[in-house]
Amino acid sequence: MNRLPNDPRLALMLLSSIVEPGDADLEDLIEEHGAVETVRMVWDGTVPDRLRRITCAAVACTHDPAERAAQIASATRECGARFLMPGDPDWPDQLQDLLLVCDADEPHVRPPRGLWVRGEHDLAQLCRRSVAIVGSRAATEYGQHLADDLAADLTESGWTVVSGGAFGIDRAAHLGALARGGSTVSVLASGVELPYPKANRSMFDLIVQRGLLVSEWPPGASAMKHRFLTRNRVIAALTAGTVVIEAAHRSGARNTARHAAELGRVLMFTPGPVTSSQSAGTHQLAREPWEARLVTRAEEIIEDLTGIGGPMASQPPTERRPIDRLTEIEARLVEALPRGYVVEAERLAAAAGVPAETAALTLANLKQSGWVDQIDNRWRLSRGGHH
Amino acid sequence: MNRLPNDPRLALMLLSSIVEPGDADLEDLIEEHGAVETVRMVWDGTVPDRLRRITCAAVACTHDPAERAAQIASATRECGARFLMPGDPDWPDQLQDLLLVCDADEPHVRPPRGLWVRGEHDLAQLCRRSVAIVGSRAATEYGQHLADDLAADLTESGWTVVSGGAFGIDRAAHLGALARGGSTVSVLASGVELPYPKANRSMFDLIVQRGLLVSEWPPGASAMKHRFLTRNRVIAALTAGTVVIEAAHRSGARNTARHAAELGRVLMFTPGPVTSSQSAGTHQLAREPWEARLVTRAEEIIEDLTGIGGPMASQPPTERRPIDRLTEIEARLVEALPRGYVVEAERLAAAAGVPAETAALTLANLKQSGWVDQIDNRWRLSRGGHH
Repeated sequence: MNRLPNDPRLALMLLSSIVEPGDADLEDLIEEHGAVETVRMVWDGTVPDRLRRITCAAVACTHDPAERAAQIASATRECGARFLMPGDPDWPDQLQDLLLVCDADEPHVRPPRGLWVRGEHDLAQLCRRSVAIVGSRAATEYGQHLADDLAADLTESGWTVVSGGAFGIDRAAHLGALARGGSTVSVLASGVELPYPKANRSMFDLIVQRGLLVSEWPPGASAMKHRFLTRNRVIAALTAGTVVIEAAHRSGARNTARHAAELGRVLMFTPGPVTSSQSAGTHQLAREPWEARLVTRAEEIIEDLTGIGGPMASQPPTERRPIDRLTEIEARLVEALPRGYVVEAERLAAAAGVPAETAALTLANLKQSGWVDQIDNRWRLSRGGHH
Repeated sequence: MNRLPNDPRLALMLLSSIVEPGDADLEDLIEEHGAVETVRMVWDGTVPDRLRRITCAAVACTHDPAERAAQIASATRECGARFLMPGDPDWPDQLQDLLLVCDADEPHVRPPRGLWVRGEHDLAQLCRRSVAIVGSRAATEYGQHLADDLAADLTESGWTVVSGGAFGIDRAAHLGALARGGSTVSVLASGVELPYPKANRSMFDLIVQRGLLVSEWPPGASAMKHRFLTRNRVIAALTAGTVVIEAAHRSGARNTARHAAELGRVLMFTPGPVTSSQSAGTHQLAREPWEARLVTRAEEIIEDLTGIGGPMASQPPTERRPIDRLTEIEARLVEALPRGYVVEAERLAAAAGVPAETAALTLANLKQSGWVDQIDNRWRLSRGGHH
């Protein structure tokens, strides 16, 4: 009989060390039975065949799962990291929006079951006003200059820059923000103790001091190609919007862009010379049905993220419905809804300081008049909205 | 008693030599009384005060209007030009779309009352598949290279390039098309015998040999700043769409762009480095509520002009309503409607080979299902359409 971890956090860490993130079968079991019971089922072999084939090797060579979980927890502490799970006060709830877009074709877009985090900050807090800057590793000087500049200006306006950890655009964005004293979030495809690529080590050191390294994989996990793709959905879901700066036709940045668009986040791109292959992927975004917005300055990014100004501002008055025509309660609900996020009615009511029943009624009206969209019991600002 | 021209063509030439194009008062008189009678009213002084103040000096020093008209006609012949007027077989009827957008605030967007044309081609024929390429005089090498390239490729695909006659983008577009044996149309703000600027003389010579110089002003008229703005509406209205390649924040190209958008023509722009002031105006187009399309290649321009491919092509099948779901008569009417043009029901019925009554009925259905828009008795493909 195997010794099993009896703490959900330890159980989730253990599961994360043997099954890749976003696995629909495993996520379903955890949701139904809890993490502790799911570990038991995995070690008993009473899980769906597909999942058993994935886990059998790890199960076969791990005779003391409780000890293995303790080892992971200890490796986590050793590198100065901690493990966050849904429900923790610093868990960024916007990650659960991934539930809205995952389907049978794309089981891997399920929300993370937990995150290793390294750094002092509160992840939820840091990402409350955050924007992703992503792009090509093989960026041109132009692209890097732009990423650096935009990240610096966004930082100065109080926005947290979220990116990966690669050379090129990711690196330029982090350094631009860090140089202005900003806190950035680097979402990794490897363990937080050994961020990839190693040559960016001093940048990662700065991020640990000033911001956060984040990963779905335990310490010791190494970066693999498919992990970058899995990781991209977290960058898109953490933030209110994604700016793509330089991307080739097929690229990870375009994958992040697609996630952002599907999540209803604000998708933006910077233009470049049509003669540059590094701009081909961003220009392509403009011709896809994703409502990607062309941005050239930090103010335009903020405009798009907050809905202040923007195209609606220059439309004829008859087509505008400014927020000051709303009742006070309507306006409070609309203002409590961060653009790009999908929020539960109860949380929204609480944030707006409106009784739940009043909120439900008012939201239904706001939906009628085109201010908000409803997705089950969740609400978001309407994309073609009046804001 | 003054001798007056008794031929409408001569009367229109004479009027064009004393009143700027697009004058609402004069256009109304011509429409109501005809050009010959309008000349009489102008010389009698029985016209609205505003118009009398404009015409009185010319009237005072022209004692033989008929002879003056004959002189203009002779100057026209001498430089190898001719004067076209609405109703002529080679008059481009799409210019009348300007009637749909002019209003009290903008009387100067009235259609031209006539056009001087120099060159062998049939203007209506040449502009049947035409696209405007406009942009900055102070274009960068990048912009000129792009204009040259796009014009060359559009020419090879059978599209006529229409532009002004300025240095920079205009010149590069003409030369790109001419170098591939194309026929281009240069719409001028001066008389066709002395196109401005003189330094582009060899380009204008080539255009006369291979394409057309076009102007609303008689021989002898010189280019003036306000005439370029007046001219821009003709470039926008002649063509199915306008591509803006490099434009500063305030520029004539952006003025042409606005006309194109208001006319329901396809508005496109090419991106460039955000660090280039010459691209600032094109990037700004993307953030205005004009549905300007980012284009990087001639194929994308053609895609946008013809509605083949484009964003609709990649939308999920449930949101598509492909043309092959239409009845044969519906499809014939939709296909007979050139994208970006507004066409009278009768002409459309004739072009589609459908009896007028059937066409009227079918168009009403197509309007219901969102394929076409109706403007009085005229029809156009719906902009958000399914094409």
